[in-house]
Amino acid sequence: MLELIKVVLCEPSHPGNIGAVARAMKNMGLSQLVLVSPLRFPDKQATERASGAEDILTQAKVVPTLEMAIAKCQWVLGSSARQRAFAWPQLTPAQTASKVIGYCQAEQPVALLFGSEQSGLTNAQLELCDYHVVIPANPLYTSLNLAAAVQVISYEIYQAFLAHEHTPAPVPLKASQKEVAKVLDHFEQVALALKFTDAKHPKKLWVRLKRLLAKAQLEPKEINILRGFLKAVQLKTIEK
Amino acid sequence: MLELIKVVLCEPSHPGNIGAVARAMKNMGLSQLVLVSPLRFPDKQATERASGAEDILTQAKVVPTLEMAIAKCQWVLGSSARQRAFAWPQLTPAQTASKVIGYCQAEQPVALLFGSEQSGLTNAQLELCDYHVVIPANPLYTSLNLAAAVQVISYEIYQAFLAHEHTPAPVPLKASQKEVAKVLDHFEQVALALKFTDAKHPKKLWVRLKRLLAKAQLEPKEINILRGFLKAVQLKTIEK
Repeated sequence: MLELIKVVLCEPSHPGNIGAVARAMKNMGLSQLVLVSPLRFPDKQATERASGAEDILTQAKVVPTLEMAIAKCQWVLGSSARQRAFAWPQLTPAQTASKVIGYCQAEQPVALLFGSEQSGLTNAQLELCDYHVVIPANPLYTSLNLAAAVQVISYEIYQAFLAHEHTPAPVPLKASQKEVAKVLDHFEQVALALKFTDAKHPKKLWVRLKRLLAKAQLEPKEINILRGFLKAVQLKTIEK
Repeated sequence: MLELIKVVLCEPSHPGNIGAVARAMKNMGLSQLVLVSPLRFPDKQATERASGAEDILTQAKVVPTLEMAIAKCQWVLGSSARQRAFAWPQLTPAQTASKVIGYCQAEQPVALLFGSEQSGLTNAQLELCDYHVVIPANPLYTSLNLAAAVQVISYEIYQAFLAHEHTPAPVPLKASQKEVAKVLDHFEQVALALKFTDAKHPKKLWVRLKRLLAKAQLEPKEINILRGFLKAVQLKTIEK
C-alpha cells in the first residue's frame, strides 16, 4: 500500500541529504524516491549516508522536470516552511498522514514534494500542490534539514499506517492480584517481626506499599524475587 | 519550560551527527545538549551541519560519564531501536512527548538518552532509564540515524508542547536517580549479607531489581520506607 507514495526531491544540491532521505524513507516503510534534476547523483556521499537503504537509491528515478515526476499522481502535497503571502490549504504532518493513508487505501498515488536545501519549494512548485504541509516548529528557527523534514512526515505516515492496520499493542506479563496480595501479607509478617512500623501512621505504611507494588506492575518472576528475599530475611531472623 | 529537557548523546562518533542533532533540537525549541565522551568535538563538521543552530553547540556540555549527565534529572528516557529480551516499560514518541511535557510542567528535569551510532544504548545505559522510547519503524529496517531519531522525538515533544500549553497534566513527585541508586546499593548489601542470590544468573537479579524500581517510579517517601525496612533487616541480622 505504501508503495503508492512517491517522495519527490526538487533539485537537491547535497548528495548526503539524498542518502539520508533514502534511509528515513526505508525506516518508515516508504520505497519510491524520485529526484528532479539533482546536482550530483549517484554519489559516494549519498550511498554512505543511506547506510542500509542503498536499495532505495538504486531504484530511485531521476527526471528532468517536476511535472514528469508527478504526472501519474492523483495527489500532490508540498512541504513548506515559510508562510506564503498567498496561503494554500495547509496540513500538519499528522493531518497529512491521515489523508495520505486514505489516498493509498483508495489506490490513488500521492507525491510528497520537498524543495532544494537553499530555498525550499518555489512558488511555481507550490502551486502544483493540492495541499501545503507545514511542520510546526520553533518560530525563531523553522527551517528543517531536508532529510529531517522527510523523516518527520514519513514518520507520521508510518504511524497512521500502523494505526490503520490495528496492530495490537504488546502487553507485558503481569502477576495476578492474588499473588501481589501475598507479597504484601508476607512483607507485613516480616515487618511486624522486625518491629518495622510507622508509629504515627501505622495504617498508612501498608497503603503506601500497596500503591508502590501497583505502580511496579509486578511480573510473576518479580513476585518470586520479592518473596524469596522476604523468606531469606525470615530465615535469618524470626526462625532463629 | 522546554529548557528542563536535556538531550544526552552517549559517545557519539560522527561530529556531523552532533551538528544535525543541534539543528533538529533548535527547530523543535530544545536547547540543552549534553555530550558524553564524544569521539570528536568541537569539530568543523558539527558546526557545518548545525547550520543556524551553532548556539546549541556552543552551550553544549561535555561530560565523561552518563551518570554525571543525568545526576540532577528526575526522569530518564532512553531511545531504543532493538527489542530487548528483557523488556523495560516502553513508550512511543507521542506517549513520550505527553509525559515529558507533564514533567516540565511539574518542573522536574528530564534526560533523553541516545546511544552511539554503531550500537545504540548499551544494556547498562538502558538500565538507568525509567522508560525506553521505541520509534515504531519498518520491521525490516528499524535503525534510524541518530539525528533522525532526535528529530522525531523532539518533533513530538514540540507538538505536545504546542497542544498542552494550556492544559497541565498532573505529575507525581519523583525521587532523583541518585536516591534510587542508593536503594539498590542498600538492597545489594543486605542481600549479600543474607546470601540471597540467584546462583544460576547472579547478575540478572540486580537488573531485575533495577527494572522493578524503575517501574515503581519511586517517590522520596517510598525511598524512605524501603531504606528504613532494609535498615531494620540489617539491625536484626548483620549487626548482631
